[in-house]
Amino acid sequence: MPDSRNSSLSTARDHDCGLTPQLRESAFMKACRREKTPYTPVWLMRQAGRYQAEFREIRSKVGLLELCKTPELAAQVTVHAVNQLEVDAAIIFADILLPLDAFGNGLDYVKGEGPVIARPVRTAADIDKLPRLDAREAFSYVLEAIRITRRELPANVPLIGFAGAPFTMASYLIEGGSSRNYENTKTLMYCQSESWHKLLSHIVDLSVDYLNAQADAGAQALQIFDSWVGALSVDDYMDYVFPHAKRLIAGLTPGVPVIHFGTGTACLLEAMRDAGGDVIGVDWRMNMKEARRRLGNEVAIQGNLDPVALLADRETIRRKAEGILRDMVGDPGHIFNLGHGVLPPTSVDNAKFLVDLVHRFSSGNSDTSGGGDT
Amino acid sequence: MPDSRNSSLSTARDHDCGLTPQLRESAFMKACRREKTPYTPVWLMRQAGRYQAEFREIRSKVGLLELCKTPELAAQVTVHAVNQLEVDAAIIFADILLPLDAFGNGLDYVKGEGPVIARPVRTAADIDKLPRLDAREAFSYVLEAIRITRRELPANVPLIGFAGAPFTMASYLIEGGSSRNYENTKTLMYCQSESWHKLLSHIVDLSVDYLNAQADAGAQALQIFDSWVGALSVDDYMDYVFPHAKRLIAGLTPGVPVIHFGTGTACLLEAMRDAGGDVIGVDWRMNMKEARRRLGNEVAIQGNLDPVALLADRETIRRKAEGILRDMVGDPGHIFNLGHGVLPPTSVDNAKFLVDLVHRFSSGNSDTSGGGDT
Repeated sequence: MPDSRNSSLSTARDHDCGLTPQLRESAFMKACRREKTPYTPVWLMRQAGRYQAEFREIRSKVGLLELCKTPELAAQVTVHAVNQLEVDAAIIFADILLPLDAFGNGLDYVKGEGPVIARPVRTAADIDKLPRLDAREAFSYVLEAIRITRRELPANVPLIGFAGAPFTMASYLIEGGSSRNYENTKTLMYCQSESWHKLLSHIVDLSVDYLNAQADAGAQALQIFDSWVGALSVDDYMDYVFPHAKRLIAGLTPGVPVIHFGTGTACLLEAMRDAGGDVIGVDWRMNMKEARRRLGNEVAIQGNLDPVALLADRETIRRKAEGILRDMVGDPGHIFNLGHGVLPPTSVDNAKFLVDLVHRFSSGNSDTSGGGDT
Repeated sequence: MPDSRNSSLSTARDHDCGLTPQLRESAFMKACRREKTPYTPVWLMRQAGRYQAEFREIRSKVGLLELCKTPELAAQVTVHAVNQLEVDAAIIFADILLPLDAFGNGLDYVKGEGPVIARPVRTAADIDKLPRLDAREAFSYVLEAIRITRRELPANVPLIGFAGAPFTMASYLIEGGSSRNYENTKTLMYCQSESWHKLLSHIVDLSVDYLNAQADAGAQALQIFDSWVGALSVDDYMDYVFPHAKRLIAGLTPGVPVIHFGTGTACLLEAMRDAGGDVIGVDWRMNMKEARRRLGNEVAIQGNLDPVALLADRETIRRKAEGILRDMVGDPGHIFNLGHGVLPPTSVDNAKFLVDLVHRFSSGNSDTSGGGDT
């Protein structure tokens, strides 16, 4: 078992070598460091996905897991999204649930149902049985995809690696899939808190190594997806999640910016900031000015257009995107993004329209009328 | 078509006649008026439901719609919950989606899937086709259930009537059931805003008459369930929902307290208060002290135990319930409740334990150790 602190030290060196001046001075990396940028950098969560014809074409031939496990294909869809949308950062195509596959819990994606975990974890014994994995072996295919992607991406486009955060990962592992009420997750958390903490520690151990390995392989930034943490009260977050989120982020390679993201986190904002991250990701429910007021000036903020806005007409997209940009005018630490992932019915043209609009509007050229509305 | 203001005036008279001194001085009604109470009143959303053996017994013989439409049965389950739990208020057994059945959209409850609306509303033409209903005719069975319940309830237990709020009702009508992202709802809201406002106006017209008829029939308070409004940003709430919620609440019989409830509303709290309501209902995500700080002192607050806590052990229930009560010590406008409805796997004993604990702890008798933990 490698010592995670040792591996962090070695990755810090490796990584610094990979951060070219061009990448370091990119708008995205500057915004992560809260430095002034010539325009607001923008990328979209799930920017490579089913809304793209090219992606659907590939997915008609391979399953989602197979796509993740075929580095050339994962790199191809990652790079394609950047080229198609002209966004300011790439995010490696992978899935936050890959560790559940690696643990041997039987991860599958069932059409119309989302992820299903055949053997969920419900007891202390289940938790004790989770194998200790070497992240570099277990996720060698993701690391290879990152190496290929880094070679194929434009030299000025940073690549983001990512992993699920401990609460969100545990919720899938315990519920066996998506959930509305997190009944099993919270019951285990409340009634078997020792087992809960053991489970989250186990997830954190693996995630630290996995994320640092991604940085080593060529990722310039790391995003932690705590997509469902908004189901918790702040008291529960502090008691059951905060120490783990904090240890995870503290274990990551120094110098690699970390984006700490969740949805529905209006009650958790300060707690998530205190757990760590150079950038805090917020969803559309939160007004950006209010998020800045509450977060203070020591972090950058990523967000926060409602993904459903991209299903609407261009006037709606324009009105909402410009509203966000106006709220963040003069704020050097803003990375524009959706509040959650691109939805499958989104039109690629609308996504491109948004990216172009963010660039034009934020660089002072506010003529975003573009072509005719669709 | 009856004029809603005229019917409000007549209901105000009718209703005042029904509010006996005993009901007026009950802990629940006093808390609604932010008057000091000898103990914190408590009731539980969905306190009549599948977690009760007696309810499951009835439901094994009749469907949910049939149960709602059989006033004697609806009254029976309503009264049974009060007697079993010894809560401080009854809520009439009904469903927020009954108007969708009355509109003729084909409401059904599909096992494991929740409500399914066979003919959802998606276009301006669909909205124009929605019939104008006379609430007293369309929901005569609910009104009859209220009359029976009022006769059978203990004379000091107030009865709550309710309806879905415009956004939540529209979301079911447009999506055709439950939803994660409200894609159709928001797209219609953004792209066909005239139709959206027409739809919400239509829902409000019916809801005002429906709720006032419930007060007439014998309900001492009214709750408006905007269960899913937390999916909206505050800007969207103000543009697309606020005027309708405000008109709905303004149209209700004066003197009948209104509880305005939603989940995930941390960003909407002040806006919902401004839309109206004597009591604002909040879920577990929100700290109660923080809710009081933000809401000010002109409203009462209802909430906010996580319903999942009732699936845990008694030590968890005690710790969390006492935490809420401590936060609200000395606050005269607190009605204890869950943050959302009782979950089906809840044990009746745990629910009774909670109610008893709230009463004992808040009346100064803090020996809530009760019997042995289960």
